[in-house]
This record gives sequence, structure tokens and C-alpha cells, in this order.
Amino acid sequence: MNTELIFSAGPGPAFDTFCQGRNYASVHTLTDSNTATLALPVLAASSTILAEARNWTMPAGEENKNLATLSNLWTELESAGATRRSLLVNIGGGVVTDLGGFAAATFKRGMDYVNIPTTVLGAVDASFGGKTGIDFGGLKNQIGTFAAPAATIISDTFFATLPPEQILSGYAEMLKHALLSSSEATHKALDFDPVADLASGNMLPLLRSSCNVKAGIVAADPHEKGLRKSLNLGHTAGHAFESLAMRRGKPIPHGYAVAYGMVVALILSHMKLGVGTGLLYPLAAYVRSHYGSPGIKCSDYPELLGFMHSDKKNTAKKTVNFTLLKNAGEPVIDCATSDNDIRTALDILTDLI
Amino acid sequence: MNTELIFSAGPGPAFDTFCQGRNYASVHTLTDSNTATLALPVLAASSTILAEARNWTMPAGEENKNLATLSNLWTELESAGATRRSLLVNIGGGVVTDLGGFAAATFKRGMDYVNIPTTVLGAVDASFGGKTGIDFGGLKNQIGTFAAPAATIISDTFFATLPPEQILSGYAEMLKHALLSSSEATHKALDFDPVADLASGNMLPLLRSSCNVKAGIVAADPHEKGLRKSLNLGHTAGHAFESLAMRRGKPIPHGYAVAYGMVVALILSHMKLGVGTGLLYPLAAYVRSHYGSPGIKCSDYPELLGFMHSDKKNTAKKTVNFTLLKNAGEPVIDCATSDNDIRTALDILTDLI
Repeated sequence: MNTELIFSAGPGPAFDTFCQGRNYASVHTLTDSNTATLALPVLAASSTILAEARNWTMPAGEENKNLATLSNLWTELESAGATRRSLLVNIGGGVVTDLGGFAAATFKRGMDYVNIPTTVLGAVDASFGGKTGIDFGGLKNQIGTFAAPAATIISDTFFATLPPEQILSGYAEMLKHALLSSSEATHKALDFDPVADLASGNMLPLLRSSCNVKAGIVAADPHEKGLRKSLNLGHTAGHAFESLAMRRGKPIPHGYAVAYGMVVALILSHMKLGVGTGLLYPLAAYVRSHYGSPGIKCSDYPELLGFMHSDKKNTAKKTVNFTLLKNAGEPVIDCATSDNDIRTALDILTDLI
Repeated sequence: MNTELIFSAGPGPAFDTFCQGRNYASVHTLTDSNTATLALPVLAASSTILAEARNWTMPAGEENKNLATLSNLWTELESAGATRRSLLVNIGGGVVTDLGGFAAATFKRGMDYVNIPTTVLGAVDASFGGKTGIDFGGLKNQIGTFAAPAATIISDTFFATLPPEQILSGYAEMLKHALLSSSEATHKALDFDPVADLASGNMLPLLRSSCNVKAGIVAADPHEKGLRKSLNLGHTAGHAFESLAMRRGKPIPHGYAVAYGMVVALILSHMKLGVGTGLLYPLAAYVRSHYGSPGIKCSDYPELLGFMHSDKKNTAKKTVNFTLLKNAGEPVIDCATSDNDIRTALDILTDLI
């Protein structure tokens, strides 16, 4: 996983600098229908290489992260004359970088690719670490491969084009990385409002800290054998909240669900690992004021438990495996948790937020 | 590329032994319409694991090494309950192992796979080394990835089911490996008739030597940056013979074309690198008696040269890059060769065979 992480307020010039001396046979860009108009022109105005690159635009949205789009992109790369010495530049959120990364990893058995994430979630999560892929047969990321981008260029340049809800959703992953890092990083992250403070100049340093947390974990465990599971913090309950909301016909953004899930994880950490409430209460207050309440009732618990039990990370059938925290920066993976403990945690959650 | 190469006259029991202690969540087999009836029953009769594995059969033939078959195999793996801890066993020639390997490498971002090649070419070439893929957009192996099988189980058990022409075609690659290995290996290979002597018991040791030559080269250069190009010996002219025959509507087996191409390579080695004729004459005699003549005329030269110039391994436009030999076992890659030299070599070829 030799990805060069480049943090820059000027992603266009940073890309040109990255390309120096690399002699790519040709450069191709992939955008979606949003970033084709909101990001590519900005990049092309400040990068001579991107200005001259041939662009292909996929339709935006998770529902297009599929085999048909992938096949069309392969065809485009061929007709554009791409070779294994060419470069594909993926400009967009996780859908674009996941699909583009997989296309590059498999075109002629692999060409280099660079990600320029345009969303908060993309910047701190999807755009590096080597997971690429598409949805297939109704399942997310069912088909894919581990293939690291040659570089990921991270900036906050494009965040102002995003809806506030999407910024907050991505910021939940930054809160997660802070929790996995240290108490100091957590309090720094909780002191920042990613919407109100976006123009403050403090976002880029926070992005850098956040990415470095994930990069450190991925480097230690690229294929998710152990430590990388700590990145699931908040996701076990989070996925259940997300799935329940979907089933109710009132979907919530992924990061909102993860935010609620992290509060559940800290409650369980308190209950099961004896962790104090010094992290839990400030986090819960932040989540309540920025993400609101998950709005669940006792009558939802059976469904939520059902979703948690179907999580692919479980190894035994009677318990649910959570990633918990002994302290900020000290994750404990695979904590087997009983349904009773989960119900208690959900009770506390609804009291807190 | 941590592939365990297993040479065995009993591939079924060898597979069961390989599986011991590996605890695969489930085992799935991929066959084509030939190996489903000619190979799988033989294996299932001697392997309890393969007897119980769920099998899926793809239609035989290179024309089915495509995205539609791949997509159907992914769907089958999902509906059969395969996980990333399952194992896919590819039973067949290069089409089956290339497509099955790619499916395994990309299903849930990668599950283990084992190849049990049933053809000579599969055994010594396609079934290990990590190249996987499908044809796409009319181009061979256009889409794929480098992913090594956990094991390749090599035997001559199934060769008696093959047409003699196909055995000889695969044997051309064994001659190539012998040439890349040593003078002794070359003369041993030239003393063997893979059709007449198939039941002699000498095939398996020859397979072992041949595979070890390729395995050594692949280990030294898994991504074809340099040394691995030596495996192209005979293929530059060979592909041209193959393409010309295809265009004429009289296709010849790949290995026959490679056999003619190796004679061309040894002629050029003599002309350009001053190599003696101690390898060339015995090889030409063997090719003439086993593979016949390519039947080309001077009027074919322009087309043959055209095919050679379009080879993807060329770096400059005015010359064609050949892999040549300084001696048996001493390949020289990227030998830039003029059209005049190639014409002279083709003249000598038509005199020799």
C-alpha cells in the first residue's frame, strides 16, 4: 500500500507536481455528473495536465456503482488509448474513487490511479487504503480488489459545494478517527463545527490528522485481518440504525448512523470495559446538537438486534462483535456482546440523545 | 506470489492433503463443459472434499472467457454462500483458470483459489504465475489482475483425454521453458514425444522441470517489468503466424505458432548474437517433424511484419523487440530487430521447416 498522501489547498498544482518525472503515457479523468461541473473545471484551471486529460463522466449516485458503469469505463479507457502505463484520476466521492480504482486495478491487469476526493467522507475514508469495488447482486462492495492508489490528493477545496448534511456525515468518520487516536485529538475534533467553521482554515489540518490515523491503521493491517477492524468503531450499531431507517422509508446519511453508533460503542465501553464517561458525555452532546436523535423506540430493538446479528463481522451466532474503546486511542476489537447488554445500551442512548 | 506448486499423479488426494488444516468455510469448483464430464468425476472419486463441493460449469471455449460468464460465476458464488474464507477450485485449461482466478480475486475483494489444470498448456503456463483475467472488447486478457493461486496441482492424469494436436500445442511451451533453462533440459525435451510417450511415466518429471523454470522467472519478476519478458521467447513471430493464419481463415493452435516463432528466434539469435546452430538445427528438426511447416510465402512477409509491429511489447516504432538467446538458459530481452533482419530470418525459416 504505497499511497502518497498529499495534503494541499491547491490540488491542481499538487497533482502536476506529483506527475513530474513519472512519464505517464496518457492521463484520463473520471468524474460523476456532479464533479464534472463542480470540481473538474476548478482543477483544470490550475493544472495543465488535468486541463488536457480526456474526461469521462459517470452518472452520480451509489446506484450507478455497478457492473454496467464499470464495463462502460473499461470501454472508454480502451477507446481513449489507455495503456498500463497510463494514469486514471478519479475526481469525486467514494462511489467515483471505489469504481474508478477497481477499473484501474483491472484494466490490462492494472494501471496507476490517483484519487482526488471531493467529499469529506471520501477524503478521510474511501479515497485511500486500497479498497476498491462495485456493488453487485444487491450487495455493497461485493466485487472488488485491494489496490492502492499511487497518490491521494486531499484538500477542502470542494467541500463548500456540498450540502451541510453531507459535510456532517463525513465528519462523523473524522470523529471516529479522533477517538481511535487520542483524547486530545477527540477534544480538538469536538471543538470544531465542520459547517460553520469550514472557511476557518482549520479543516485541512484536521483532515491531515484524521487521514494519518487511518493510514497508520491500514499500513499495519492492509487486508483487515485484525487491527483494521478498529475502523468499524460505531459501525455495528450504525449499520443497524441505517438499515432500520431505510426499511422505514426514511433513510439517514451513513455518517449520522455512525455518529449514533459511536455513542452506543462508548456506552458499551463504559458498561463492559469500565471506561469513564469523560469521552462519552462530550461526544453524546456533540452528536445531539449536530446530528440530532436517532428517534428509536423500545419496539425497534428486535429489528435493530436482527440487523446487528446479520453483520458479516460476527463469528459466533449468539453474540454481536463490537469494536470498543478502553480509552481514546485504545480500541479493542471483536468484543462479544449479548443482546441484553445491547438493549441496555440502547436505553441509555435514548436517554442521552 | 506464494503459490504452492504440487506435482502429483493423484491430484484428488493431493488436493485433500493441501486442504488439511486450512479450514475453508466452503469449497466450490468451476469446470467447463468438457472438464465437468472428463475431469471432475475422476477427481471426485479420489477426493472427499471435491466430491462434496458445489460445482458450476461454464461453457467451454475462449469465446466464453468474457464478462457475461464472469458475472454469472460471481452470482453463483454468492448464491452458493461463498465468503472470503471459501475456496474456489478451477478445473480446466487456461480459459477456466484465467476466468476463475479473476472471479476469486475479486469476489468480496478476494478469496483463495486453487488451479487443477487439465491441459498441457494449462499445467506449464496459464495455471500459475498470477495472471488472471477475461477477454473484453475483442481483446485478449484485456481485463484482469495479478493474483496468485494458493496452490496449483499439476498432473498428467487428464492429458490422455486431449486431442494430440492440443498436447503438442502445449508442449511447445515446455520446449520454450527448456530453452530458457539449459542445453541439457532442451535436449531432454527434444528426446520426448508428448503424444507417443505420454504413458511412459516421463511426462510428470518433464512437467516439474518446465514449471520450475517458469516459477523461477515469475518469482524474480512477478509484474513483468523485465526478466519475465523472456517468457515471450517465440511469441513475437509466433503471434504473427497465429494472426496471419486466423486472417486466412485457417487458424493454427497457439503452440504451433510459438514453435515456429521459436525457430525464428533462434535464427535471429544466430544472426544477431552469434549463437551457434547447436540448438537451432535440432529444434527445427523437431518442429518440422511434430508441428509441420508454417507454410508461409514471401508474399506474406508484409502482413507478418505488420502484426509484429503492432505487438504491445514494442517501445520504438521502427524496430520489433524480440526475446533472443545468447545460449540455452541465457535469454536477452528487448532485442530491437530491423525488418530486413526479420525478412532474412523468415527466408531461413522456410528453408529449414
